[in-house]
Amino acid sequence: MSKKINVTIWNEFRHEKTDENVKNLYPNGIHGKIAEFLSECDDINVTLAALDDPYQGLPDEVLNNTDVLMWWGHMAHHEVDDALVERIRSRVYNKGMGFIALHSAHYSKPFQRIVGTSGNLSWGDDQKEIMWNLMPSHPIAAGIPDHIVLDVEELYAEPFAIPQPDELVFTSWFEHGFIFRSGCCYRRGAGKIFYFQPGHESCPSYHNPVIQQIIKNAVHWAVPNDFGYNVDFGCPWIPAIV
Amino acid sequence: MSKKINVTIWNEFRHEKTDENVKNLYPNGIHGKIAEFLSECDDINVTLAALDDPYQGLPDEVLNNTDVLMWWGHMAHHEVDDALVERIRSRVYNKGMGFIALHSAHYSKPFQRIVGTSGNLSWGDDQKEIMWNLMPSHPIAAGIPDHIVLDVEELYAEPFAIPQPDELVFTSWFEHGFIFRSGCCYRRGAGKIFYFQPGHESCPSYHNPVIQQIIKNAVHWAVPNDFGYNVDFGCPWIPAIV
Amino acid sequence: MSKKINVTIWNEFRHEKTDENVKNLYPNGIHGKIAEFLSECDDINVTLAALDDPYQGLPDEVLNNTDVLMWWGHMAHHEVDDALVERIRSRVYNKGMGFIALHSAHYSKPFQRIVGTSGNLSWGDDQKEIMWNLMPSHPIAAGIPDHIVLDVEELYAEPFAIPQPDELVFTSWFEHGFIFRSGCCYRRGAGKIFYFQPGHESCPSYHNPVIQQIIKNAVHWAVPNDFGYNVDFGCPWIPAIV
Amino acid sequence: MSKKINVTIWNEFRHEKTDENVKNLYPNGIHGKIAEFLSECDDINVTLAALDDPYQGLPDEVLNNTDVLMWWGHMAHHEVDDALVERIRSRVYNKGMGFIALHSAHYSKPFQRIVGTSGNLSWGDDQKEIMWNLMPSHPIAAGIPDHIVLDVEELYAEPFAIPQPDELVFTSWFEHGFIFRSGCCYRRGAGKIFYFQPGHESCPSYHNPVIQQIIKNAVHWAVPNDFGYNVDFGCPWIPAIV
Repeated sequence: MSKKINVTIWNEFRHEKTDENVKNLYPNGIHGKIAEFLSECDDINVTLAALDDPYQGLPDEVLNNTDVLMWWGHMAHHEVDDALVERIRSRVYNKGMGFIALHSAHYSKPFQRIVGTSGNLSWGDDQKEIMWNLMPSHPIAAGIPDHIVLDVEELYAEPFAIPQPDELVFTSWFEHGFIFRSGCCYRRGAGKIFYFQPGHESCPSYHNPVIQQIIKNAVHWAVPNDFGYNVDFGCPWIPAIV
Repeated sequence: MSKKINVTIWNEFRHEKTDENVKNLYPNGIHGKIAEFLSECDDINVTLAALDDPYQGLPDEVLNNTDVLMWWGHMAHHEVDDALVERIRSRVYNKGMGFIALHSAHYSKPFQRIVGTSGNLSWGDDQKEIMWNLMPSHPIAAGIPDHIVLDVEELYAEPFAIPQPDELVFTSWFEHGFIFRSGCCYRRGAGKIFYFQPGHESCPSYHNPVIQQIIKNAVHWAVPNDFGYNVDFGCPWIPAIV
Repeated sequence: MSKKINVTIWNEFRHEKTDENVKNLYPNGIHGKIAEFLSECDDINVTLAALDDPYQGLPDEVLNNTDVLMWWGHMAHHEVDDALVERIRSRVYNKGMGFIALHSAHYSKPFQRIVGTSGNLSWGDDQKEIMWNLMPSHPIAAGIPDHIVLDVEELYAEPFAIPQPDELVFTSWFEHGFIFRSGCCYRRGAGKIFYFQPGHESCPSYHNPVIQQIIKNAVHWAVPNDFGYNVDFGCPWIPAIV
Repeated sequence: MSKKINVTIWNEFRHEKTDENVKNLYPNGIHGKIAEFLSECDDINVTLAALDDPYQGLPDEVLNNTDVLMWWGHMAHHEVDDALVERIRSRVYNKGMGFIALHSAHYSKPFQRIVGTSGNLSWGDDQKEIMWNLMPSHPIAAGIPDHIVLDVEELYAEPFAIPQPDELVFTSWFEHGFIFRSGCCYRRGAGKIFYFQPGHESCPSYHNPVIQQIIKNAVHWAVPNDFGYNVDFGCPWIPAIV
């Protein structure tokens, strides 16, 4: 029996407590909904974490056993402790932990710090989104059609101040004249990072089975490699080989 | 006085002779129009070439003195001589000639062969296009606003079967639900390549001053470098250095 | 039971018949040796093909059932039929067949044509090579140490006239002052391509277990994706979505 | 007369005061030496800055007038004020300031923070280095030969825990069996970043005219673009275009 993938889903988990519409859409929280469909994968083991949990949900015993960390945050980015951000960044770079940034996590401290971006973008009213699949050969696009229609999502619009993705898998059309790079892969240190735009708290995107499949694919892609040497090597002096 | 950039604008030049609308829009041919605005640059020297010219417009004395070759073709891709395609490819790879593929040139033999792509895409009716500037730090985006509205262009749509561009400068929104990577940079051998989507024969895009500026920028970007060694080196045997 | 990966190993297979040293090193041919260690993988099904076989080893019924095509050629690149090259290219771009180019295949017609490169490089006497692993997070680097010492390989040296790899996994040091990008990934159309430098006919690199592991990893990486739509879409007209 | 490029050369400037050998090699400091050869360019205006200057050499009136910031640090990375690092990062991302990280600056806070890297690498004894030019078409490689021999430099060795460079211009061979990606380009936000490895304080690399030419080229490449819109756009709400 092969080892399971430990996925920790971190959620700010505030909107779902205070906004009736969001509560109705995601009664167990956005993280609860994601956990529900990830649990359909036999090889995934899910842990839930929230901002208001002790240690902001990520004590050492959780973070240090996480293979892939998923992050949803929006209103309270500034409340996330800088020391926690540093522990997350270090685990991605030096241990290869995968990091999946969902929706407003473009502006979260871990995403900004790990990738190296301000996360700046423009945003606007909810509208129709059509997400286009630009890289059918990519593991995250496995089984995904050439486009996906989301009847309503929050507008995120270019310019998006990110480094050009190592692999740009999805780019989205928005009804009122905008586009957005909506599925972006990066490698930083020994880790892999995926930014995925859908998932506004008042929109049902995480109920969409194709969106769910993309997130399942992303988890499998972001798993740390079976490293053939210690990738947390620091800055050592080394003797001559020849 | 510094050396001028020799730009050769190759045009299939058939639509402009047979279609009244196109003739009215581009009375001197699409290449003639491009030559007109490129000639505003003091450092550019333009040569015109057309499919029905002797040697398909590109005898050795022209091609071998070209720094940047611009290509507009559509209906007659198959008429372009394979030996000419090979001479173009070789000059890009081995001498660093720039190659700018305009609009339907996504399906031209030189673009397919130089970049390594089928050039496959979907297309459809003329509609509004909004081109977004994704990389303001790129030389081709110098002075270009964050978006450009083209009231009517032919639809070119994703999936576009190109390799991920080395630099994706522009991506376009189309009115009826589509997006397209509309400004794509590649390096092949010692040469630089830019694909730029606007420019259907019945649309006035080459009259748009921002589109003109992008093409001027692309010419300056695509000029062969001042190489510090012979980049047409073949496959030589070399002795030990140490 | 999941579907097996059909790997076809194409070999020029001339050196092994005419050179006593090569025959001793690879008595069943280089392709035979590779087949031997690939067969250790339960999920791989190997077919052998050689230049002097009927249809140059790749009749339709073989090529059209190949998931990953491996290519070793050296002296007889020019003998490979152009129509076959075109069938290979088309299958990579339009069906997603993986293509693994070994050693002198940098100068093979399929590699040149698929990737878009002259394949130019410099070469020299056999010498010590140390291959460095630059991307431990890459599937092809799974389980591979930070460096691999090959006591003797043919010198391949920069400049190597390839497009910058989408993922540069390995770069090698050579004893007499040279380096070479020795493990290079590309995507073209729906297909994935890996160039891997070790494997001169008179050197024992394919007997090295780490080299074998890299080739096994590359096969698994290059397998066509489970595409969610028809990636052989041509250039169709499409109606409005909205 | 066109505007000059304001280059600020920041140097830790400690070794040159305490080590007799370094003082002899760089009597006016490493920054002084770089200023000397940059001043050969009519279009460059140089400002010197050092760690022990007031405001660590970069008060607002200096930083906010800098087009390209060059950084040499080694022993005192930890002394650089975090607020200064943040001001530098912000100016690169949001104003497009170029950032050139020299030698040990791989481990400097600004480089780590701007690019998104631990900067980890291995290092060792001084030895012969041969730097290979992988991208002759790049502006930073203009006029540079295919390789440069440095008789003695400090060993910096792979694995180097950087993101794959957007453009990998140089990679170096080291005498005792190592290689290193020695010339690496990145884009972050609106800014361009170049990492360049030569320049240990006890080695004469900045006296080498080819190394000087590379640094001159890098300055010209890293200059902020002529942006066509406000690239410091933050995260605004935007109304519908159509």
